Amino acid sequence: MSKRIAVVGATGAVGAEMISALIRRRFPVGEIRLLASRRSAGRKLDFNETRIAVEALREDAIPDVDIALFSAGGAISKKFAPLFAKKGCVVIDNSSAWRMDPDVPLVVPEVNPQDARKHKGIIANPNCSTIQMVHALKPIYDEAGIRRIVVATYQSVSGAGWSAIMELESQTRDVLDGMPTKPQKFPHQIAFNCIPHIGPFLENGYTEEEMKMVDETRKILGDDTITVSATAVRVPVVRGHGEAVNVQTAKKLTAARAREILAATPNIVVLDDPANALYPLQTTATDDDRTFVGRIREDISTECGLDMWIVSDNLLKGAATNAVQIAELLL
Amino acid sequence: MSKRIAVVGATGAVGAEMISALIRRRFPVGEIRLLASRRSAGRKLDFNETRIAVEALREDAIPDVDIALFSAGGAISKKFAPLFAKKGCVVIDNSSAWRMDPDVPLVVPEVNPQDARKHKGIIANPNCSTIQMVHALKPIYDEAGIRRIVVATYQSVSGAGWSAIMELESQTRDVLDGMPTKPQKFPHQIAFNCIPHIGPFLENGYTEEEMKMVDETRKILGDDTITVSATAVRVPVVRGHGEAVNVQTAKKLTAARAREILAATPNIVVLDDPANALYPLQTTATDDDRTFVGRIREDISTECGLDMWIVSDNLLKGAATNAVQIAELLL
Repeated sequence: MSKRIAVVGATGAVGAEMISALIRRRFPVGEIRLLASRRSAGRKLDFNETRIAVEALREDAIPDVDIALFSAGGAISKKFAPLFAKKGCVVIDNSSAWRMDPDVPLVVPEVNPQDARKHKGIIANPNCSTIQMVHALKPIYDEAGIRRIVVATYQSVSGAGWSAIMELESQTRDVLDGMPTKPQKFPHQIAFNCIPHIGPFLENGYTEEEMKMVDETRKILGDDTITVSATAVRVPVVRGHGEAVNVQTAKKLTAARAREILAATPNIVVLDDPANALYPLQTTATDDDRTFVGRIREDISTECGLDMWIVSDNLLKGAATNAVQIAELLL
Repeated sequence: MSKRIAVVGATGAVGAEMISALIRRRFPVGEIRLLASRRSAGRKLDFNETRIAVEALREDAIPDVDIALFSAGGAISKKFAPLFAKKGCVVIDNSSAWRMDPDVPLVVPEVNPQDARKHKGIIANPNCSTIQMVHALKPIYDEAGIRRIVVATYQSVSGAGWSAIMELESQTRDVLDGMPTKPQKFPHQIAFNCIPHIGPFLENGYTEEEMKMVDETRKILGDDTITVSATAVRVPVVRGHGEAVNVQTAKKLTAARAREILAATPNIVVLDDPANALYPLQTTATDDDRTFVGRIREDISTECGLDMWIVSDNLLKGAATNAVQIAELLL
């Protein structure tokens, strides 16, 4: 039953969480290979009781494994995922390189697990902002249909890696100390500031991050009639993404019924007790594998609509946990 | 021409900005009286070259002035605004106490200056989040009509006063130092966190802050057919509110035309050059009297829609500046 696993991009923020998720979820790991750039080769990482040396990722030394979890950026995935797949392994790729490829399933295990079976060697892990949104919207889609989604995101910096986390922390200290800030990873100061710019801008005025939420949502739910408009904003938070989601349904759905079906959805936690100031927060979602939903209310601006606030840990359900869950589907 | 002015709540975060705005905008102040709670009485504040002693606000000592700028909370306004008005002065009130009173005009000078003339002694200053939104939406309303608005806010802590600013700063230091946080002003940790809860919750699941954006928008634009759904979120930013606004118009409006009419609107700055990472930020709006609009794009999720990102300084255009602009209408 046990599998030989590779983690490609093992020293990154998501890679580290992939290793943790394999351990925490007791994935049956027979052998583990940790790969990263040449720069990180030789570093030692813990896996359970064992110290494992990180190997350099090289075209001429693709390891023999059953499943490879990739989180090393789009360019690396584009080049290396087919090389791994050709050796007979299944690649679960966290980059955006393969997500919209018609031959590559794009999977959230609670939403479209059946798609994972159709893989041809590569399965794509969706964008963090998309995963938590479709996770929460799937039961609503099944119950009432979805016509249109308007979403605004409150995305933490950790999606941009370790250097982004360090930039937020050091900039924050600088601002508190009255020092000037020098943006490097982000286009502007992120400390005590929100930046409505994640990923490159496209011709239509949306960013790539925003269009991922449009295209991936349709692919995962398997319904091209759903329309989506997204505004993706980086906020000065270390971990966890928040989303203000307005959804127009085909049939009327009450907030009470939405709470009921959400509470019955695997790995969804409904936190929705305003009287006790209970709703999802980035601080409460941090280090948790689940997706949190609250502020569920009937939209007063249209006949069939719901508003909700969805939060999840972007490094876990938004990345590492979802990838390991896909691996679990392959067992 | 010069007016006798009172600032009620002169020692608060907004009160301080009202005093600055009177000076900066060269309002013809003949005499100025600064009032606050008994606790602050005796404190000295600068007004141009003069040091002025803060007086305690007392029912039996309503000062003889022409215009009173109130920013002392709803309860104080409810009680004292009529007492000031009865003495013949015009109260411009920044609290929510009078905003929806049919006898009280609710005014954004660039939007509905004509309403100011209908006052019966009290004019209400709208909620900060509403002001910047209707300021930017007015030209769009005039050009293409507005059917529905879906807005998510990114509101800084300064709207909640000095103590909120201090709480964000001290909590941020605590988190950076690995210390536990003790929320006091906010229901949860605000440092490195977003809280989807501003103002009390209402029966329909929305908060008071969110419903202000619904009700006030209709009153200011004078059109009850406009529907609005809002999600108001506090973000760890000191000053400036961001808003992701999705607006469905009655007629199709191109992004180019929207930019054109917005750029021609007084006190609106269009910052919309994605290729150069130019869009409004809270840091750039801070200490500026104007409203900034960017990320203007045609909504891909519906036939007649626009998305935009609106930012303004919540203490200035969102409060003090708008109040002083209303006073200017009275000259």
